[in-house]
Amino acid sequence: MRTQVAIIGAGPSGLLLGALLHKAGIDHVIIERQSPDYVLSRIRAGVLEQVTMDLLDAAGVGARMHREGLPHDGFDLCFDGRRHRIDLHALTGRKVMVYGQTEVTRDLMDARTAAGLGTVYNASDVQLHDFNGTQPRVTFTAKGEAHEVHADFIVGCDGFHGVARASVPTDAMQTFEKVYPFGWLGVLADVPPVHEELIYASDERGFALCSMRSKSRVRYYVQCSLEDKVEQWSDDAFWDELKRRLPAEDAARMVTGPSIEKSIAPLRSFVAEPMRFGRLFLAGDAAHIVPPTGAKGLNLAASDVGLLSHALTDYYRGNAVGIDTYSERALSRIWKAERFSWWFTSLMHRFPDTGAFGRRMQSAELDYLVKSEAAMTAMAENYVGLPLNV
Amino acid sequence: MRTQVAIIGAGPSGLLLGALLHKAGIDHVIIERQSPDYVLSRIRAGVLEQVTMDLLDAAGVGARMHREGLPHDGFDLCFDGRRHRIDLHALTGRKVMVYGQTEVTRDLMDARTAAGLGTVYNASDVQLHDFNGTQPRVTFTAKGEAHEVHADFIVGCDGFHGVARASVPTDAMQTFEKVYPFGWLGVLADVPPVHEELIYASDERGFALCSMRSKSRVRYYVQCSLEDKVEQWSDDAFWDELKRRLPAEDAARMVTGPSIEKSIAPLRSFVAEPMRFGRLFLAGDAAHIVPPTGAKGLNLAASDVGLLSHALTDYYRGNAVGIDTYSERALSRIWKAERFSWWFTSLMHRFPDTGAFGRRMQSAELDYLVKSEAAMTAMAENYVGLPLNV
Repeated sequence: MRTQVAIIGAGPSGLLLGALLHKAGIDHVIIERQSPDYVLSRIRAGVLEQVTMDLLDAAGVGARMHREGLPHDGFDLCFDGRRHRIDLHALTGRKVMVYGQTEVTRDLMDARTAAGLGTVYNASDVQLHDFNGTQPRVTFTAKGEAHEVHADFIVGCDGFHGVARASVPTDAMQTFEKVYPFGWLGVLADVPPVHEELIYASDERGFALCSMRSKSRVRYYVQCSLEDKVEQWSDDAFWDELKRRLPAEDAARMVTGPSIEKSIAPLRSFVAEPMRFGRLFLAGDAAHIVPPTGAKGLNLAASDVGLLSHALTDYYRGNAVGIDTYSERALSRIWKAERFSWWFTSLMHRFPDTGAFGRRMQSAELDYLVKSEAAMTAMAENYVGLPLNV
Repeated sequence: MRTQVAIIGAGPSGLLLGALLHKAGIDHVIIERQSPDYVLSRIRAGVLEQVTMDLLDAAGVGARMHREGLPHDGFDLCFDGRRHRIDLHALTGRKVMVYGQTEVTRDLMDARTAAGLGTVYNASDVQLHDFNGTQPRVTFTAKGEAHEVHADFIVGCDGFHGVARASVPTDAMQTFEKVYPFGWLGVLADVPPVHEELIYASDERGFALCSMRSKSRVRYYVQCSLEDKVEQWSDDAFWDELKRRLPAEDAARMVTGPSIEKSIAPLRSFVAEPMRFGRLFLAGDAAHIVPPTGAKGLNLAASDVGLLSHALTDYYRGNAVGIDTYSERALSRIWKAERFSWWFTSLMHRFPDTGAFGRRMQSAELDYLVKSEAAMTAMAENYVGLPLNV
């Protein structure tokens, strides 16, 4: 088989790249190791930046998001038993959209089916070849048969554990990593949200986040130990712990219910440099991971794909500047989002080694933050997303 | 001897408190362990906030500062071989004044002499008594004779190593501390400054600061190891190291000369809570230390003294609210200045355990900072000094 761009991975970034390339008239294939149901079952982020919304619109898949998504003008920071509103719209003129990653993926899958574009699912033994030369290839097995795809370019949208980054010789790449000494215990439940906007809470017992997917489905989190097993956390224990980390009036108002999903996720910062190796590009989680505080993961993947789709479109019109500068431009924005995610994580969580002085630094920063328009604006402009070229 | 306020320590905070109390018609004595020459020989900070300038004016000792001091509208942040100006005045409407602590101390001493106010120098065996009761006393020996001062209040302005904080039972006080794993090697020299404003430089080899005392006297620093001895650093070695941490054009332009003073100072963050114990108050370094990055030490001492002089004036007019809330109000501002000093120190220095990821966090923050008006404003409003009641 012969195509222009071979995309590895059919998660939201691979599907979005496929949709944008299709709009630009660029031929591509998407090869995914898992099944469609598996991809859809992954519960992830739910807060979209304007940059991401614009890309979904450009890909022609924004209609349901605009209809069913919840535009949020702000969020609440909670500490010392009080909530303080960060008015994103007043501070930056922009909003965010609460719309689950699962819904984004579903919209992209549906649009792909409607456009008559196929996706290779359940591909095994996926291997990348010769991307340092002029004729890269991808080989894989599907439905018991061996396949070979010849492409101009390969794009790795296959996540942190995918084959794309693993195919790059380690001496061609520099990696940066920070593993945080705690996890997030997350619960999905069909109850009305405790508050119409998100609440990020810093409490002596640890961080908590009251997020939502819709007006009848919540996604709540509490910071937990990495040693904790999800089986140890009954629904009652989760709700009790969450309530203890919120102001009394919020705890009293909270509607609880049985969990639909419950899981513990570790928190990690990771960046691989560069993001281009000859005719292989990396995008999204394949190249970088952020801790979920600040909801930057999906948005960074989208902005990578946005830069890359423009760069490839320019390439096929005869201008290679975009692909030659992709890695540098993407990383400039990624590092700023990594910094924001690291800062927000460091500000809000209890760390085993914070100590009394470090704890006071967190308190002083929170107290300063909600009193300083400049500091709130700096936080807000990062939360709604820095410009695509920053 | 009987007085209203017994002040321990004749450094700038004790002298400023004395001057402000004198203006308010409040009787006081100042008791200092060292000689006047010793006090004047201590080379310290040289950047005054507006709050500090206002207090010096209120004390009637601002004339020479206004005449000889250098108002600065901004400073330069330097990294990756380039300087970026932080325009304090454009961002905040305020300026800072470059005027050495030694000069402030001299002006306060001269005003004290002119007003006919004495200071007890070379006092030994200074002891504080009964400050938890209604009749506190200070005993000491001077010129071979034992003295006893009965006062309404005692104020400890005697620095980090002074007797005042050490007189408080440890179970009545909570302390917070961070010791940084490096020092500052500082040099004083009579050469023209390399640049008309201060330069704060973050370099792979470590932090550097080009400060000044006047248009013909510089105070330059390089981050050094805590194991370094000042004797190991020749003037040539210092100048060479400083130049390596600055952009080539600044290094080329730099005028060097023999050092007048050369010393290594450790960096520490420290806060003791509360700042009132019955009829004893602590002010300045006696209660808190900041690392010198950001030049907050003298300014914090001045703002403590400002709050306390108002509180004591109110007290003698029949209103005790000021003294009852002094500790809380002072600490609110102190913690924010501690946070700023810790943040600026953390951003600019090489730490042994920073690691590759942490180094990138510093780079990303610097790159973000100089491109974001909000982030620059947040930095600038802290640098020029937060309001007295924050």
